[in-house]
Amino acid sequence: MLSLFRRRRPRAVAPQLTPRSDAIAVARVELAELTPPTPVYLGRLGYLTLVLFENLSRAVLLAPTTSAKTALSAAVAEVLEAHEGVVTEMRGAGIDPVAAMEPFRAELDDFRRRIQGADWPESLVTCYLTGGFLTDFFTGLAAGLPSGLSSRVSLLLDIDKGQAVLVAQLRTAIEGSSRLASRLAMWGRRLVGDTMLVARSSLAIGGQLPGEERIEPVFTELISAHTRRMDVLGLTA
Amino acid sequence: MLSLFRRRRPRAVAPQLTPRSDAIAVARVELAELTPPTPVYLGRLGYLTLVLFENLSRAVLLAPTTSAKTALSAAVAEVLEAHEGVVTEMRGAGIDPVAAMEPFRAELDDFRRRIQGADWPESLVTCYLTGGFLTDFFTGLAAGLPSGLSSRVSLLLDIDKGQAVLVAQLRTAIEGSSRLASRLAMWGRRLVGDTMLVARSSLAIGGQLPGEERIEPVFTELISAHTRRMDVLGLTA
Repeated sequence: MLSLFRRRRPRAVAPQLTPRSDAIAVARVELAELTPPTPVYLGRLGYLTLVLFENLSRAVLLAPTTSAKTALSAAVAEVLEAHEGVVTEMRGAGIDPVAAMEPFRAELDDFRRRIQGADWPESLVTCYLTGGFLTDFFTGLAAGLPSGLSSRVSLLLDIDKGQAVLVAQLRTAIEGSSRLASRLAMWGRRLVGDTMLVARSSLAIGGQLPGEERIEPVFTELISAHTRRMDVLGLTA
Repeated sequence: MLSLFRRRRPRAVAPQLTPRSDAIAVARVELAELTPPTPVYLGRLGYLTLVLFENLSRAVLLAPTTSAKTALSAAVAEVLEAHEGVVTEMRGAGIDPVAAMEPFRAELDDFRRRIQGADWPESLVTCYLTGGFLTDFFTGLAAGLPSGLSSRVSLLLDIDKGQAVLVAQLRTAIEGSSRLASRLAMWGRRLVGDTMLVARSSLAIGGQLPGEERIEPVFTELISAHTRRMDVLGLTA
């Protein structure tokens, strides 16, 4: 059970900003036997980190202030580091990164287009919620990887610093605008559906999804973490 | 004269990919007395590195292949590091980064919009040519900064790795398409005009530009470096 309490980088943010540990603990137990083969896991995660990067860099582009742009650049650096780390892991394991990522490109590009959001606040919510959900999920799945790789990948997926930046920017944007808050709450509800589909399809082995009874507890916990993320912003999930 | 031959990071690319050293050497001699006060220099450079980042992340978004996306992410990481480095220098000097960058936002956002290019190959050319020209120029201007800061900033502006990635991607794109090559040659000629205007306006002190005779040698050399960059791609400047 020690793996549930693996060492993490010191947290620089207040506890309410990191509602992921319960979700990860449950996911690690439930998902350990559903982890795809290493090249499939790393290939999908490699392309996913590119998508998280593209979402964040769109948020920088749309940001209305210098202050938001420069603050968000730290979040971008964090996911870029995750991407480079995953690519390095593939190379180290003798896996061709491009060939391993390629099969997931069409699905994840389509996901990115659907979730990009209409404007800056929506794109921030996308980065915060889908980034949080999917890194929780892939950290859970990492339980089934060989142990050294498992802990290295979990560290790469610790994007707490960027999540804290997104929360700070979103709080400033939402402050005092109940209309924006209600629009973003709707956007958050829509995002969770698309994001769960992407997570689910990562569990398909040989085209077959595992039985509902195996994956339901995981999604219940991941959705609770999603709700806590919405709470942090003062939005109703 | 030793400052002309300052220590640089070991070059990982072939010499023809780094046509900047002559331009920098001349610029450093000619520009040393025209360097703006430190907060102005760092503020402008801080926002400029954000713009270089935005250009590169747009190139990643438009990239048609997984291979191009993951290769370009290394170039993005390099400019993000430069941005973070410049912000760190401002903080270390007691300068508020956002306040220092803000005055240059409108001009540089406008520059970015004009140079973004219509598609992937044009956006790559933008990253390669404007990134090369402006980092040469600001490395030259760094000659007039206090010496420790001068050499740290020059190291931050060494974006050779990303430039090599851009050249490799562009060569693949251009290969065998003389029509694309001629379109990109035209695009490159247009870019140099806009880029020179931005460089020139960095020299205005108290709203006044220095006399032509002082800045002409610098621009002659920077334009030669630009021509060599076009040559590397087999394009006519």
